[in-house]
Amino acid sequence: MSQQVAPITLQDIQRPVAPGLEHVADELRRIIAADFPGIAEVNVHLLRMKGKLFRPTLLLLAHQAAGGADPRAVTLAAVVELIHLATLVHDDSVDHSALRRGLPTINAIFSHQIAVIMGDYLYSRAIIELVRLGDLDALRVFARVTNEMTVGEMRQLEAHDKLAYGEDAYDHLIRAKTASLLSGACEVGALQGAPAHRAALARFGLYLGMAFQITDDLLDYTEAEAVTGKPSGLDLKEHKVTLPLIAALGRMSPPARRRVEALMAAADPSGGLEYARQRALALALEAESALDVLPGSAARDALRDSIAYAVERRS
Amino acid sequence: MSQQVAPITLQDIQRPVAPGLEHVADELRRIIAADFPGIAEVNVHLLRMKGKLFRPTLLLLAHQAAGGADPRAVTLAAVVELIHLATLVHDDSVDHSALRRGLPTINAIFSHQIAVIMGDYLYSRAIIELVRLGDLDALRVFARVTNEMTVGEMRQLEAHDKLAYGEDAYDHLIRAKTASLLSGACEVGALQGAPAHRAALARFGLYLGMAFQITDDLLDYTEAEAVTGKPSGLDLKEHKVTLPLIAALGRMSPPARRRVEALMAAADPSGGLEYARQRALALALEAESALDVLPGSAARDALRDSIAYAVERRS
Repeated sequence: MSQQVAPITLQDIQRPVAPGLEHVADELRRIIAADFPGIAEVNVHLLRMKGKLFRPTLLLLAHQAAGGADPRAVTLAAVVELIHLATLVHDDSVDHSALRRGLPTINAIFSHQIAVIMGDYLYSRAIIELVRLGDLDALRVFARVTNEMTVGEMRQLEAHDKLAYGEDAYDHLIRAKTASLLSGACEVGALQGAPAHRAALARFGLYLGMAFQITDDLLDYTEAEAVTGKPSGLDLKEHKVTLPLIAALGRMSPPARRRVEALMAAADPSGGLEYARQRALALALEAESALDVLPGSAARDALRDSIAYAVERRS
Repeated sequence: MSQQVAPITLQDIQRPVAPGLEHVADELRRIIAADFPGIAEVNVHLLRMKGKLFRPTLLLLAHQAAGGADPRAVTLAAVVELIHLATLVHDDSVDHSALRRGLPTINAIFSHQIAVIMGDYLYSRAIIELVRLGDLDALRVFARVTNEMTVGEMRQLEAHDKLAYGEDAYDHLIRAKTASLLSGACEVGALQGAPAHRAALARFGLYLGMAFQITDDLLDYTEAEAVTGKPSGLDLKEHKVTLPLIAALGRMSPPARRRVEALMAAADPSGGLEYARQRALALALEAESALDVLPGSAARDALRDSIAYAVERRS
């Protein structure tokens, strides 16, 4: 991490798996294809919301780093993006979000009802595809992870408007909500590798995911809408309790905390941003050391670079 | 069907599988158990909304009728009820329904957001359990069926306020929305049986499910809230286009149809109720003849009786 000078781009990380990544979007299109026009219409929009394919990238890199060369990894990479997409569609609906990746959300364009149904449609298509591959191990990991994500969403609802929300609860929240799927992506990529490599990559994904989410929460405080594609300071305005705020609150006297309750619209939770940055860096180091057990490879180097990308990104 | 004199009760149908059915609720409780208090609290409410266990009954009867005696059938029966429950939670949320089985819905008691998240929680728990059983065949059937149900929900949204909605579209709708899961329950019960028996039971469930849904739509026109546990005439008030109305519209002159557009609150879509009843009976006969290939057994007799139950029930 500290050795990095020039910023790491996503393209840098994706280089070792670029040939596989090229097919992920086509696989995704195939897996969600629908005869029914009402669904096909929503699909067109979903495929337009091209993501950065960060989870497919991790899955393919983990696959390569663990010595795999199975062409089905591309399909699994499409499935992890599909699961991510299904959860985004439901999350946006639950949060009443209007924008995602700079484009209007499904609930905004169509309706809340269609967003609920489409999330279910996408998720059940992911399961169908995993069954078609006959891959019970991948099914086991992804089913566990998607269940954890629903628990994360429940935790998130409870976090709203609770200034008593502590760092321990926040850790549980970001593990369940974000880190579980990044960990699952790495683990599924490495399913055919040595058990020690599989476990190391799952652990790597967990720490990476936690650092990634803390960075995301930091960006909500520090970056402008133009860069992140979603309104800035939204978490604070929505009374979402994320680490920058939790850390700031932990250092305040009771009168100060009461003032914060009155001033939830304040833009800078003093000291919290720096604490959160340090926490993200500590997790980044944990992620880095998890990779030590793997043999040297371009894929392992790219996974290491993905840590820097996760904690240094600006969007 | 025509031989029946005394009305068939659900207890009559459940008799051959009563010992297995007794354990379904406990299995369901085990499968959805949660550490997180926010989810455990919703679970308590869900387990209180005891359904009639019609789908588990069909699964266990199909299992027995196809010669099976696998103790895991009870777990599969709990899973089919769980999938049903997950779809009800989302459907109630999508439809903004306040009552289900005479009790307030999850969206009514908790919130719309919690209903969306809990539906995802329940469904992913069903997948986890199927993976635990290592049963790829059951996973294949249930994944296909849940995906069909989401298409059914999309078709249902499109059916609202469309008087041009025809009987063909209605058939697609009730197959996807209702018959697919009843068919899946029967097929999964018979997975270890002879292929011909498995196919026959899947077909039986399909026709039974279509007859069941037409009867449900009829009940919405004819029965009082006290019996069905949901407000009467709701489909008409909500401009849901179901078979009684479709059939009535088909026989009207254009001016009459225009009058219906103005009078969507009218209580009797003349002639439609009788047509829908005849259609349900024709499907019931198809279901009955699908059972002919099975050897005689108490379970097969109970499946036959379930047809009468499905089309003659009053709630």
